[in-house]
Amino acid sequence: MESGTRTAVGMPPGRLLTLADGIFAIAMTLLVLNLRLPDGGNADLATQLAGLRSAFLTFVISFVVLGVFWFAHHQTFHFLVRVNRTLVWLSIGFFLGVALIPFVASVLGAHPDDPIALTLYGGAIGLLTVLGYVTWWYMTGDRGLVVEGMDPKLVRKVQHWIAVGPVIALVAIALAFVSPLVSLLIYVALPVLFIVFNPVDAYLERLRQNER
Amino acid sequence: MESGTRTAVGMPPGRLLTLADGIFAIAMTLLVLNLRLPDGGNADLATQLAGLRSAFLTFVISFVVLGVFWFAHHQTFHFLVRVNRTLVWLSIGFFLGVALIPFVASVLGAHPDDPIALTLYGGAIGLLTVLGYVTWWYMTGDRGLVVEGMDPKLVRKVQHWIAVGPVIALVAIALAFVSPLVSLLIYVALPVLFIVFNPVDAYLERLRQNER
Amino acid sequence: MESGTRTAVGMPPGRLLTLADGIFAIAMTLLVLNLRLPDGGNADLATQLAGLRSAFLTFVISFVVLGVFWFAHHQTFHFLVRVNRTLVWLSIGFFLGVALIPFVASVLGAHPDDPIALTLYGGAIGLLTVLGYVTWWYMTGDRGLVVEGMDPKLVRKVQHWIAVGPVIALVAIALAFVSPLVSLLIYVALPVLFIVFNPVDAYLERLRQNER
Amino acid sequence: MESGTRTAVGMPPGRLLTLADGIFAIAMTLLVLNLRLPDGGNADLATQLAGLRSAFLTFVISFVVLGVFWFAHHQTFHFLVRVNRTLVWLSIGFFLGVALIPFVASVLGAHPDDPIALTLYGGAIGLLTVLGYVTWWYMTGDRGLVVEGMDPKLVRKVQHWIAVGPVIALVAIALAFVSPLVSLLIYVALPVLFIVFNPVDAYLERLRQNER
Repeated sequence: MESGTRTAVGMPPGRLLTLADGIFAIAMTLLVLNLRLPDGGNADLATQLAGLRSAFLTFVISFVVLGVFWFAHHQTFHFLVRVNRTLVWLSIGFFLGVALIPFVASVLGAHPDDPIALTLYGGAIGLLTVLGYVTWWYMTGDRGLVVEGMDPKLVRKVQHWIAVGPVIALVAIALAFVSPLVSLLIYVALPVLFIVFNPVDAYLERLRQNER
Repeated sequence: MESGTRTAVGMPPGRLLTLADGIFAIAMTLLVLNLRLPDGGNADLATQLAGLRSAFLTFVISFVVLGVFWFAHHQTFHFLVRVNRTLVWLSIGFFLGVALIPFVASVLGAHPDDPIALTLYGGAIGLLTVLGYVTWWYMTGDRGLVVEGMDPKLVRKVQHWIAVGPVIALVAIALAFVSPLVSLLIYVALPVLFIVFNPVDAYLERLRQNER
Repeated sequence: MESGTRTAVGMPPGRLLTLADGIFAIAMTLLVLNLRLPDGGNADLATQLAGLRSAFLTFVISFVVLGVFWFAHHQTFHFLVRVNRTLVWLSIGFFLGVALIPFVASVLGAHPDDPIALTLYGGAIGLLTVLGYVTWWYMTGDRGLVVEGMDPKLVRKVQHWIAVGPVIALVAIALAFVSPLVSLLIYVALPVLFIVFNPVDAYLERLRQNER
Repeated sequence: MESGTRTAVGMPPGRLLTLADGIFAIAMTLLVLNLRLPDGGNADLATQLAGLRSAFLTFVISFVVLGVFWFAHHQTFHFLVRVNRTLVWLSIGFFLGVALIPFVASVLGAHPDDPIALTLYGGAIGLLTVLGYVTWWYMTGDRGLVVEGMDPKLVRKVQHWIAVGPVIALVAIALAFVSPLVSLLIYVALPVLFIVFNPVDAYLERLRQNER
């Protein structure tokens, strides 16, 4: 689909991408199931909705976090031309992390200032960023998985970009036990950072400018 | 996939469309989870089903509303040849609105004449139409995102067409506090309007007639 | 994707098919949510599972029914080269029927011998077959939506094939009030009939034989 | 999509693969719904999470098991160029097994040492492996469904590989009544075996080495 120039013997990446998009789409949409009016509540609607405040905040954060990971996946797998067994299993581990987000989000939504809930959330994000890092390292190695002639500078830049993730997750987890609020704010700030700073997009835009 | 003539450096739109279709498909199908017989009810089935009346009406309205937004997305993104960071984030915001529909529909189904439920519903629709407007404005600007040589008349017509959305959502929200029934009827009428009047379809049909 | 020879001005069918496959996949998988052990039951597991007997039967029937409709959709839309507004809205109505199946299945699973539950189930199937009939009639009309030179015999055969659906649904609904068991058996037999007799498959196989 | 050299009259496999990926993606993601904090629990979060231990283990096992089946599906259907009625119905039966995994996983998560829960789980895995075996046998028969000139050694190797599945499932079911723990450990070991030993991947890698 998003093929390059190399016609490789082996499995094309089409179905892995379809599975990825499916799992992201479902995880993002399942998040809404954490927003539920309490059954048989006697309180009026405004009060009931007010009770969903932190669940709603967690919904928005988690949706954007999944958006960040989807876009990063989209951008890094853009260079892929072939999949092999190791890459598939790295991906399935990554998808497991994606599927866990609705669960850790529901826990965080119900206990927004509990260090354990914040740790759980940071753990899922940490898992995703660590696997993302390993996946990028693996696929850009000399295994014939990506398009030929990739710019080594881009490869390194993306590597550093992803490496920020586990560091931030660790900091947020550590801070959860000191100040839950700061930890929560880090989870809010994380996606903003990744949205604003995006080396692949910058690289492709530069290519476009030069071509004109 | 639905490519044009320009071979652009940059990310092709394929995966964003797959994600969009996935999120729409899931949101549309999750709506059915709002239709549930009450657990452990002693009433007979007919009575239980009668109690789902307004939930069922909300299901149908919301399904058609999502259908309207899906078709509008399909038609406007038909002209896209390339995605960039800004467009992806506008889209993820739009998807967040789509994912919220099953929630606001469940609230409206349980409280069909509560101004707050109607406001919430109108808010989700307003978010979707505002983001749809901004997205169309952004992608048809001179950024090399759409097919070359787009008819400026079509661009403007679609812009006016989408702009109707936020206006209607605002009116429905305002009326929710005066007459909930009229507000509800507007949400019923909204999709009908968009189904009957469709500038992109009319434009493509005209192209077809001329070609014959 | 499954394109023909005609290069049509207009919207290619790719995204409508992706949406269709997504909605079918979700509706089929959501059926499993009707299989749930009762919360806080004191009975042993075997007893609890035995209580899910009719829910399980409904799960299997509904999964196969959705399989029948998916395959019929696949086969009839195989000939499509272009979508227009009317076809999209016929499809969205059809998808609404697909999304309703998990709900009517859950009602039938809980009340397998209640005429109302059987009527509801028959109503959903009736809606799907009627819309399927209208859709096939519309798309094979002279509107440039299907591949050129379709065999009129095949068009008519498929029309008769689909027309069996509403008739059977009506009979099953009528019998629900006389003998619920016979009505239920018809819903079991319906997919078998459609699996065994399939005019499109027979037609394509004949084409293949001639080509050899 | 993943087409071969033969241009076959008949239905291309694209939509069956899309449906497959959709159903796998949803089943994998729905597994997370089995992870739910108990409503209205008075216990602190750590205690509540500890109570989800076996549900979490089942989540991970089931996710990896579905990953194994998805990858095996991906690899075997890689050689497919055409679908017919029989193959579609074998596939729908296979998808039914996939859709059942979240249910049998929820039962096993709640009753990890109950022989009946282990039997149910083994039954679903047995169904999937038996149908996988029959499907591979059917599609590699002389029916024009796969790419021309498939290596008969590969065909046989894959057949033996899949045949291991039903045998292991039967052993695990038998042991469930003797030692539930050993039975559970087999379900843990099963995916590891399939991950480590993969004849299709080995075959394609060998092709790649020879080509260089």
